[in-house]
Amino acid sequence: MQWVNFDKLDSYKKLSELGAPVNVKEAMAGEEGAKRVEKYQVPMSSGLLYSYAAKQVDDKLLDALQELADEAQLTAKYEELYNGAVINTGEKRMVLHQLCRGQLGKDVIADGVNKREFYVAQQEKAAAFANKVHAGEIVNEKGEKFTTAVQIGIGGSDLGPRALYMALENWAKANGTLKMEARFISNVDPDDASAVLAGVDLAHSIFIVVSKSGTTLETLTNEAFVKEALKKAGLDPAKHMAAVTSETSPLAGNPEYLESVYMDDYIGGRYSSSSAVGAVILSLAFGPDVFARILNGAGAEDALAKNADIRKNPALLDALIGVYERNFLGYGVTAVLPYSQALIRFPAHLQQLDMESNGKSVNRFGEPIDYKTGPVIFGEPGTNGQHSFYQLLHQGTDIIPIQFVGFKKNQMNNDVVIQDSTSQQKLCANVAAQIMAFACGKDDENPNKYFAGTRPSSIIVGEQLTPEALGAILAHFENKVMFQGFTWNVNSFDQEGVQLGKILAKKVLAKDTDGALTSYSKLLGIF
Amino acid sequence: MQWVNFDKLDSYKKLSELGAPVNVKEAMAGEEGAKRVEKYQVPMSSGLLYSYAAKQVDDKLLDALQELADEAQLTAKYEELYNGAVINTGEKRMVLHQLCRGQLGKDVIADGVNKREFYVAQQEKAAAFANKVHAGEIVNEKGEKFTTAVQIGIGGSDLGPRALYMALENWAKANGTLKMEARFISNVDPDDASAVLAGVDLAHSIFIVVSKSGTTLETLTNEAFVKEALKKAGLDPAKHMAAVTSETSPLAGNPEYLESVYMDDYIGGRYSSSSAVGAVILSLAFGPDVFARILNGAGAEDALAKNADIRKNPALLDALIGVYERNFLGYGVTAVLPYSQALIRFPAHLQQLDMESNGKSVNRFGEPIDYKTGPVIFGEPGTNGQHSFYQLLHQGTDIIPIQFVGFKKNQMNNDVVIQDSTSQQKLCANVAAQIMAFACGKDDENPNKYFAGTRPSSIIVGEQLTPEALGAILAHFENKVMFQGFTWNVNSFDQEGVQLGKILAKKVLAKDTDGALTSYSKLLGIF
Repeated sequence: MQWVNFDKLDSYKKLSELGAPVNVKEAMAGEEGAKRVEKYQVPMSSGLLYSYAAKQVDDKLLDALQELADEAQLTAKYEELYNGAVINTGEKRMVLHQLCRGQLGKDVIADGVNKREFYVAQQEKAAAFANKVHAGEIVNEKGEKFTTAVQIGIGGSDLGPRALYMALENWAKANGTLKMEARFISNVDPDDASAVLAGVDLAHSIFIVVSKSGTTLETLTNEAFVKEALKKAGLDPAKHMAAVTSETSPLAGNPEYLESVYMDDYIGGRYSSSSAVGAVILSLAFGPDVFARILNGAGAEDALAKNADIRKNPALLDALIGVYERNFLGYGVTAVLPYSQALIRFPAHLQQLDMESNGKSVNRFGEPIDYKTGPVIFGEPGTNGQHSFYQLLHQGTDIIPIQFVGFKKNQMNNDVVIQDSTSQQKLCANVAAQIMAFACGKDDENPNKYFAGTRPSSIIVGEQLTPEALGAILAHFENKVMFQGFTWNVNSFDQEGVQLGKILAKKVLAKDTDGALTSYSKLLGIF
Repeated sequence: MQWVNFDKLDSYKKLSELGAPVNVKEAMAGEEGAKRVEKYQVPMSSGLLYSYAAKQVDDKLLDALQELADEAQLTAKYEELYNGAVINTGEKRMVLHQLCRGQLGKDVIADGVNKREFYVAQQEKAAAFANKVHAGEIVNEKGEKFTTAVQIGIGGSDLGPRALYMALENWAKANGTLKMEARFISNVDPDDASAVLAGVDLAHSIFIVVSKSGTTLETLTNEAFVKEALKKAGLDPAKHMAAVTSETSPLAGNPEYLESVYMDDYIGGRYSSSSAVGAVILSLAFGPDVFARILNGAGAEDALAKNADIRKNPALLDALIGVYERNFLGYGVTAVLPYSQALIRFPAHLQQLDMESNGKSVNRFGEPIDYKTGPVIFGEPGTNGQHSFYQLLHQGTDIIPIQFVGFKKNQMNNDVVIQDSTSQQKLCANVAAQIMAFACGKDDENPNKYFAGTRPSSIIVGEQLTPEALGAILAHFENKVMFQGFTWNVNSFDQEGVQLGKILAKKVLAKDTDGALTSYSKLLGIF
């Protein structure tokens, strides 16, 4: 396998000499636009479809991106990854989150363990635990059933599982599979834990402490916070807590927890939603069957990502169009705009996934690089965003590429017809309209009412946001980020950039500071 | 008053010839750094302070920015604004949101009405209404008291009031002033309304329909959705609904509402939190006294914004540093990172406030301009963000300026000591550490562990997130955006960029489409 800096590739040179991109404003107008929509779409798994007609692409560009994919060996690198190569060079680790979802390639053995079997065993352990909680076999100190599950974790132990929970909470209610309500405590701000605890029935709550090392400051602090609250209420913490951690952590197999389910070093936090980190809380909330359906959707999408033909590989295609926009069109930000209230926290998950993976200035060997890497990711659900920041997206001085997501059907069985259309139809009409408004704009004599258009977007369209569709969307973006990391030749699986702040915060708490750090500590009332 | 394009100013030329900015990495190191923190801070109102030592500024730059402020007549334009000039040129309207908070200048008379008196009268109407609801004088059809208030609105009728409610909900609980819980319905996605309605006690909920025109599609649709739910539950909608609207709207003085409180054309949605749009829901939730305290904080900050000396005017200073970063350092994104869980939705409000106001490509006379205007705004609370996208902020290939917010004390009376420090101390230690990590970075032989530093940030520090502090922060950012709009010579008070999408969505719903718009409508299952 060749790991070469992006700007050393022949295909980089070719892309940089390709000239101006297709004029989307013209290309999407009239009946030619309809043909483009027909042509530039690719099926995903789980009833989803990736449509990229409103991106600044044409066949010439796609051919050049195919050459890039081939020269950079992108799908071959993916194959190496799922077959257990040490892709995380910085930390010298394998990268195995896809193994949670299926056996994509060869058996992967690490530390004498078949890792696919290990991940399945942890899913089964999480399922068995959830089933016992649901059946009233694991109960509180009074022998009563738990009604609420609270995850204590931060970063990847919070954002992904929280986004998935919120994405399916209403679907589960509508389908009668909401077994328990879930809540999340993450911030070291003591008001976060206080507010969550004030909103739950403590005696009937079970807390899942999630920390791979068992040493994450925020999580241990919040665990202690919760234990104190339990004790104050006359409850026994050991009867209310479970752990998701590594087998070597102080939390593992500890009698202070009802159960320990394991994670390992081969799955990073931001890729851990389909591991035990998501398994326990989501199996408790929705039941193990629903969690398995999420994994099925993700696994099906992982399989599609093997295809070396970019026109048949939605994650790879999405990745390469993003690279083109970032490195050749100079766009520094991508907006993720799901037309689904259930996906309200999904952009926050993608922020971590993408920005923590590819916000790097060195290549996978630790050498400085000379080209742009990961963009800023932000987003809110539509139609809300339309009444907020879309003004800048339509008429601002920078072009912000957009990733829409939309579904034909809503999740709950309730809608209303106003002015001859349902709310769901209005929602879908708005996303269709926005794609065209961004692409084609509108001429107007009054420059204030003029829309330049040529603002590229793509859309993932699905029938409904089901567990399978959700898993597929999750895996799509994980794989997109992975392919972009391969292209940029960065290590998408470490995060050295988070260390310095931790070190300095410890200095402050140890009062081992000088200069401006002392000044800020005083300003903030710590000293 | 002279309204001149930014790049035509002498001070623009001077700024562009100023050369490289101060090296923050060096300037913030050692004891010189401590002196910088001492020097580059300015008091705000309500116990807050704006510290900009970690920005790329020095006295030479500040002098140049002062010249810019003077030449562009920024505080004089503010004076014109609050004295009732037609600042919103596109819509030919005055801009009067500051009048909700105090009489800053002369009496402003519009349509024969003293507008300060009008806004005060609406506040009093909202207060009287809230007091009657709290006292059980306005009750449901069974004569029972209301326990929950639900705002139905979108954009500025949602984001600002929701952010303020969330910012004070726990403070109010801790201080015994939470009168009613508030909820919000905004999205036309029918699952938004369904989920909120499923989570409230319908019989004891009062709904506030907020739409200036009385014609906002999402809001009318959601109102109908709610009315249908009320009827299905055997309840009388007219006994459960109030309106915030303009005096000429179909909702005004309509017997279908318990009360109508009025807004007018001189306060845009994103500036409306301190008008009736915020007054009704926040007075219901917290009581009129708390709402008045928010206004007091905002009013005090508005008064500070009059000062022509940029070193004594935090909003103006913040605005000008932002302009410098945007137009001379080329930074296209600003991160807003509050170290306060209570401010979790404040960045979403600022996204609208900033991006909808200044995401423009024409000047206030509708003529195209040749320089960058408003940046992209995004953010999440710390310390959560540290475990998410901070990787890119520290080590990514673009520099993203940061706006921190932090408070010495938390809002609730509950904390825990772990490893010799409270959670609140840990929270504050982290923000102090992050400022220094971003500014000074860290040298390391391993480029993967190298931090370049020179990543500029400022911080607003307060004693505690009280109603006054919240109002002051709200006004600070409103005024910052206003001053930036003046500098860029754009109209920060219209939003023509949101119109095209609305028009196309109507076409879709009327099935009056062709070409790609038809294709997308089919893909999304509308046709």
